[in-house]
Amino acid sequence: MTFARRLPLLLKANVKSKNSVTNLYYPVVFWFQHLQQCLLSRGCECWNWANSAPQGHPGERMPILHHLNDSRSQRILWLLEELGTPYELKFYQRDAKTRLAPPELTAIHPLGKSPVITDGALKIAESGAIVDYLVRTYGQGRMMPRPGTADYEAYNEWLHYAEGSAMLPLMLNLYVSRLKEAGSPLHPRIDSEIANHLGYVDSALKGREFFVGQSLTGADIQMSFVGEIADVYQRLGPFPNLKSWLSRMHARPAFQRSIEKGGAYRFAR
Amino acid sequence: MTFARRLPLLLKANVKSKNSVTNLYYPVVFWFQHLQQCLLSRGCECWNWANSAPQGHPGERMPILHHLNDSRSQRILWLLEELGTPYELKFYQRDAKTRLAPPELTAIHPLGKSPVITDGALKIAESGAIVDYLVRTYGQGRMMPRPGTADYEAYNEWLHYAEGSAMLPLMLNLYVSRLKEAGSPLHPRIDSEIANHLGYVDSALKGREFFVGQSLTGADIQMSFVGEIADVYQRLGPFPNLKSWLSRMHARPAFQRSIEKGGAYRFAR
Repeated sequence: MTFARRLPLLLKANVKSKNSVTNLYYPVVFWFQHLQQCLLSRGCECWNWANSAPQGHPGERMPILHHLNDSRSQRILWLLEELGTPYELKFYQRDAKTRLAPPELTAIHPLGKSPVITDGALKIAESGAIVDYLVRTYGQGRMMPRPGTADYEAYNEWLHYAEGSAMLPLMLNLYVSRLKEAGSPLHPRIDSEIANHLGYVDSALKGREFFVGQSLTGADIQMSFVGEIADVYQRLGPFPNLKSWLSRMHARPAFQRSIEKGGAYRFAR
Repeated sequence: MTFARRLPLLLKANVKSKNSVTNLYYPVVFWFQHLQQCLLSRGCECWNWANSAPQGHPGERMPILHHLNDSRSQRILWLLEELGTPYELKFYQRDAKTRLAPPELTAIHPLGKSPVITDGALKIAESGAIVDYLVRTYGQGRMMPRPGTADYEAYNEWLHYAEGSAMLPLMLNLYVSRLKEAGSPLHPRIDSEIANHLGYVDSALKGREFFVGQSLTGADIQMSFVGEIADVYQRLGPFPNLKSWLSRMHARPAFQRSIEKGGAYRFAR
């Protein structure tokens, strides 16, 4: 039993017997110092007694997803469905000809890109930061490993890796392919980088159902776009673990609901 | 005064007067329930009394930075110098002709890239995840805003934004420039995206000394590579806030020490 669960019982026992608290004093102070050190090192607001409703706790606000069709915001919609928390969805449509995001998105965030979420006074862009925030705030401890564990660092690394590394050669391929033959000198390097990254991801998924731990986390959500774009370019052939993981993710009821609610998504087949 | 600081004093007063703890019982239990809810929602290990030395606390381990010259690992070296925590540095040299990382790095991490840190049994790649981990573990609350605040979400967004968005058009430029004239159809779009991102960053720095809050955070560290690469491509002209921020960062004693210890760094001028 944790000390936290034991303490109220000990206090109650002391109240009943009208004993002094002498036998409680040192363990309580010792544990408080330990808690305080840990909390302060994490800068946790809840340490402050006065702060009875820390910012970011569930129940006070409701996230709004500014959703662009056929974009990285599909995974945020999927995440919201997995979390089962109330949310609002605002739709934005790509220009049918240029495929660019509409100017209305610029009113939400100066970069004019999606996904962006607003939540009370908060505004967060960047998929990895949004996944992190939503899981931390509305997950009630689900969909992420416990901070302070090795799994937590792996989780956070996947959150960064998806857009920070894995997407780069896939985006290079997207751009350079527009040059047709003129881009051919770059393709050997781009192809080898795509194979390097997808091979790494495939190995990481070997014998595993999810990227981290034994259940779905934000890491699976964040990595899904990598799998989807690799699939669009028909690069998943040599990577069976990645391919079957993607199929499992797309088969989840929450993902299916995200497609129903978000409209056609050309990156899920 | 926070309740946490008041409680030991209250307990001490009770010990002295040999009073019963009745008057303490309800506030203590109420506050504990509040703390527990907050900590469990963050999955914080320190809640567990048995866990007297949670993984990730300073003092138990020492990070090792696997450092590649002229790479993103320069900023990790700078961060370690800012933190002032003991660390070990292992050097890897780019191939003089191909400029690629040496195969020895593959023994550390299958992707064969830098930065990578090892810390006890932990191994973390991806700059954003490394900055997050080091600040959280060795910062003792410095160099990051308190979790649960709007500043914390902004901090985390910059950690993701640097490599997840801002670097993409700069890397596209690096690759496509190798095609010389043949790449010219792509440059208008690449240039407009570079201007879009650098303009956004420049606006964010308007009237500010640092990206978040009133002092240096991991966000400045993580964003430095964006500024440096933009400077190498001589793109900083229209963005005076970004340019002067970069100069201030490079003038910091800890950055200077990182150059002395890491060896020549071609992206700082």
